[in-house]
Amino acid sequence: MTEPADSYRETRNALRHFVAERDWAQFHTPKNLAMALSVEAAELLEVFQWLPTGSPAELNDEARIAVRHEMADVMNYLIMLADQLEVDLVAACKEKIAINALKYPVSQVRGDARKYSDYDKQKN
Amino acid sequence: MTEPADSYRETRNALRHFVAERDWAQFHTPKNLAMALSVEAAELLEVFQWLPTGSPAELNDEARIAVRHEMADVMNYLIMLADQLEVDLVAACKEKIAINALKYPVSQVRGDARKYSDYDKQKN
Amino acid sequence: MTEPADSYRETRNALRHFVAERDWAQFHTPKNLAMALSVEAAELLEVFQWLPTGSPAELNDEARIAVRHEMADVMNYLIMLADQLEVDLVAACKEKIAINALKYPVSQVRGDARKYSDYDKQKN
Amino acid sequence: MTEPADSYRETRNALRHFVAERDWAQFHTPKNLAMALSVEAAELLEVFQWLPTGSPAELNDEARIAVRHEMADVMNYLIMLADQLEVDLVAACKEKIAINALKYPVSQVRGDARKYSDYDKQKN
Repeated sequence: MTEPADSYRETRNALRHFVAERDWAQFHTPKNLAMALSVEAAELLEVFQWLPTGSPAELNDEARIAVRHEMADVMNYLIMLADQLEVDLVAACKEKIAINALKYPVSQVRGDARKYSDYDKQKN
Repeated sequence: MTEPADSYRETRNALRHFVAERDWAQFHTPKNLAMALSVEAAELLEVFQWLPTGSPAELNDEARIAVRHEMADVMNYLIMLADQLEVDLVAACKEKIAINALKYPVSQVRGDARKYSDYDKQKN
Repeated sequence: MTEPADSYRETRNALRHFVAERDWAQFHTPKNLAMALSVEAAELLEVFQWLPTGSPAELNDEARIAVRHEMADVMNYLIMLADQLEVDLVAACKEKIAINALKYPVSQVRGDARKYSDYDKQKN
Repeated sequence: MTEPADSYRETRNALRHFVAERDWAQFHTPKNLAMALSVEAAELLEVFQWLPTGSPAELNDEARIAVRHEMADVMNYLIMLADQLEVDLVAACKEKIAINALKYPVSQVRGDARKYSDYDKQKN
């Protein structure tokens, strides 16, 4: 793997240091990290659970901080998992956007929620 | 908000373009994006579901590609959500690592799974 | 544990038979079952992802069948997990409703989404 | 829909009463209920996150109570969602077990984790 881009690299290094200091690598199997990531994603979702749309106007200060922290938790687990499995996140994102551009052609899905859902259902 | 760092910014711009072309912003409320992120996190988890640890040696080529793509999906939704709620992901990650460093002091949690779990339970 | 109530018991027995025939008990640790349950819950959520409210009128035949099957998957993993950890699901549901009745007093939360959210946030 | 079986029916009625008293039906769209169910499934998963297998011996009293309560939360949301979408949970579980029995033939998957995973991957 090529080195991850700049800002990821710095965060990755801070996380490596955090884990090494605590001798927690033994608990950080890819399976456990994917599980932790999923738990944090649900904690992020919980903030929006009973809100109409979750727009900034609907979020009070406490919710805004919670969103920020839960997003960071998801991101940090994502970076630790990428580090272990040697996934280049930036390249993977770019690749997936290209795949989705082919999968959802503008001419067929533009502004169409129904089509969007149907395309997604085919995925499964 | 200050502009997000380099590599995020490029991906964010590609995602903005992807969404605008399809006129999908109308579906991308923060609540819906958090939901989609959570669904993708579960699709990532699914790859590891019945594996012992998910180490690279346990992943065949198909699983490796799936992991890469599901991680990209999580990341892309995270970037779109950060864009809408004006969260600086890099700064948030750094901030959360500092918070966790105080919450889990090396001297008390080093190599200790039980303590780790107990600390996490207090969180809830 | 007392025997689970009637309809649960029958499903539990069918699941025990299904697992035994395939010699899959070795994969069904409580941790793996909780993970599988969470993955199925996300597959259920995925059906509603881009819909406004998920009311019956918004669900086509395909979505209706998907909802039914994903709910069954969640329920089946819940019953298998309860079987292993000797949890009486019917009693636990009753108990949790009583706890929530005290936690969310009618006089304070009636028809109030904001209060509802705030109460939930205190939980974490 | 035929009336749900006995023990479900009682819990469903208790939940209907709980929601009506608080005038919370307005927040309980199927989409929101599926989201809440998914959040509770993740809270259940969180208990097992750093444990080796989650066997009863690994769970202290606090964890045991948490598991019981989170399972009840999942179950209660499942029953409320089934009530709104008129899904007969007992029948759906039975149906899904029959479908899986055909999908995973004993002769091909017996005791085989790899096959199990591969079959699951085909699903997606």
